[in-house]
Amino acid sequence: MENVDLSVGSGGKGMREFIKMVVSYLKNEILSELHDSAFLEMDRGIGFTTDSFVVDPIFFPGGDIGKLAVAGTFNDLVVSGIEPKYLSLSFIIEEGFSMDDMKRILDSIKKETIECGVKIVTGDTKVVRRGEAHRIYINTSGVGRLIKKPSLSLKNGDAIILTGPIGEHAASVMVARGEYELEGEILTDCASMKFLLPLWGKGAFWMRDITRGGLATVTCELSRGAGAPILIDEELIPISEPVRTLSEFLGIDPLYLACEGRALIVSRKERSKAIISSLKKSGQRQACAIGEVGGPGRKGEAILRTRAGGFRLLEELTGELLPRIC
Amino acid sequence: MENVDLSVGSGGKGMREFIKMVVSYLKNEILSELHDSAFLEMDRGIGFTTDSFVVDPIFFPGGDIGKLAVAGTFNDLVVSGIEPKYLSLSFIIEEGFSMDDMKRILDSIKKETIECGVKIVTGDTKVVRRGEAHRIYINTSGVGRLIKKPSLSLKNGDAIILTGPIGEHAASVMVARGEYELEGEILTDCASMKFLLPLWGKGAFWMRDITRGGLATVTCELSRGAGAPILIDEELIPISEPVRTLSEFLGIDPLYLACEGRALIVSRKERSKAIISSLKKSGQRQACAIGEVGGPGRKGEAILRTRAGGFRLLEELTGELLPRIC
Repeated sequence: MENVDLSVGSGGKGMREFIKMVVSYLKNEILSELHDSAFLEMDRGIGFTTDSFVVDPIFFPGGDIGKLAVAGTFNDLVVSGIEPKYLSLSFIIEEGFSMDDMKRILDSIKKETIECGVKIVTGDTKVVRRGEAHRIYINTSGVGRLIKKPSLSLKNGDAIILTGPIGEHAASVMVARGEYELEGEILTDCASMKFLLPLWGKGAFWMRDITRGGLATVTCELSRGAGAPILIDEELIPISEPVRTLSEFLGIDPLYLACEGRALIVSRKERSKAIISSLKKSGQRQACAIGEVGGPGRKGEAILRTRAGGFRLLEELTGELLPRIC
Repeated sequence: MENVDLSVGSGGKGMREFIKMVVSYLKNEILSELHDSAFLEMDRGIGFTTDSFVVDPIFFPGGDIGKLAVAGTFNDLVVSGIEPKYLSLSFIIEEGFSMDDMKRILDSIKKETIECGVKIVTGDTKVVRRGEAHRIYINTSGVGRLIKKPSLSLKNGDAIILTGPIGEHAASVMVARGEYELEGEILTDCASMKFLLPLWGKGAFWMRDITRGGLATVTCELSRGAGAPILIDEELIPISEPVRTLSEFLGIDPLYLACEGRALIVSRKERSKAIISSLKKSGQRQACAIGEVGGPGRKGEAILRTRAGGFRLLEELTGELLPRIC
């Protein structure tokens, strides 16, 4: 790749190769683990993560870039087995950005930090000239206390659990952009997944928030990372009617649509019922098992049992489906 | 202010008011301290800071945005009495950005982290479409171990120490932009100030890196923050010949020019000699005392004794001298 193309920000293959290249420069034993969060040995275990948010539009039904910036980094820590404590907040703002919008975003950040129980403790602001950014970009980094380090030691029969319907964030943003006409609006699923934290004590041993690249890409990362076959069942994957309609209309596979408040969880089979029941009690009413470790795939392969009963090899996202989704 | 103007990113008054507004939304006891780094109570004391870098051009004599992104965050921690340990690294890249430039920046980041003895342990990459960013923006956040919490308990006679000549970073970037013709180039002062760390054990009790807003703004922050009068002496402030020439040519006061490898240090008078001698030994050959707490100002005022022998009230930067200097 001679120039950065949009696939580098896709959450899929282009991005994985870019990250590999970056890590080849900066490698150390912590970075090379390539978790969403770093595990730091300082006194006791501390976790540390970072995320920049460039979503367009900055306001969308059910959320905005401020809520997303808090929830996104919060979720990165939580799925890494880290209890989030402190966030940083850094703005890159285009000259002329409306102060009313700024305050609306700050309000939303404030609400979400209260909701999550985290504190913003340090920040930075840069302003660039008109045309050097598009409205506002936000970086949040997060620090927390390690509860349990995730494990990729999968064995056949382990349960693959999904916390809720997929693709609502991407669909919400696509409709909000006004590029597609759709009756009504789709609410984003963007939310802090605080409810995941207690699951680390209930037998969950691996989690990942489903963002860029969607469920398919996360499932591929899991199977490849663990070197295990995974089988997920299309019929079991909850998708709302509006997301399904939009996907069909656009000819997009909803398995590649980004969420911002959904996670994939792995546990031993015998612990999955308790985990799903806990998810439901905390409001994730459509939480369910969507598959298991094993099936017809080879080691490192993720396979989808289609609605029609066939099997399809899942591939991570290549190229870029939708720039600036988060 | 109805819309964000460039003064919000200036390091001066516009920025201070913006930060005050932001903090009014997000206030908690740690953020409200408004240190460059947050002091976190986790097991033992941990420090946490963040900074986004949008410098234009991304390559300038003696440095680039990569070196700056490591050194800037490293320095923010060090002047806060924190020994830097871990950095995050987050890119916002404009589609089409050259991979050669990307690798040059990564190389520079790598060199600087080795130089500093810090590790990059987590990261993120976003790509935006052409015209939605200007080449590349980098956020680094940093975590480290608290050595000594800075104090603003100044008393009359305390020494105000400057580590080296001012304004070289801003001058370097201005010339590199090609807006001003100047014979030769000016090297940036951009560097990690590792040499500051041992000074916390030698009587330094307050430090600040001199960045946006320049020496004048930092001095005002110190006097206002401590509620003490400060007197600094223009004649004692080291300024290189090229920086002086450029400032005169442009009619700019060099006291407002940004550095990226200089700091202001406060110590009791009797410790200042040892501190300056330590600075010189570590290569800061022009380190010197430039003033003291006290003088003709009122509490909270910073006064400059001019070369001509008069006194001038220093004001923090208002408006924006130079967008995208860091």
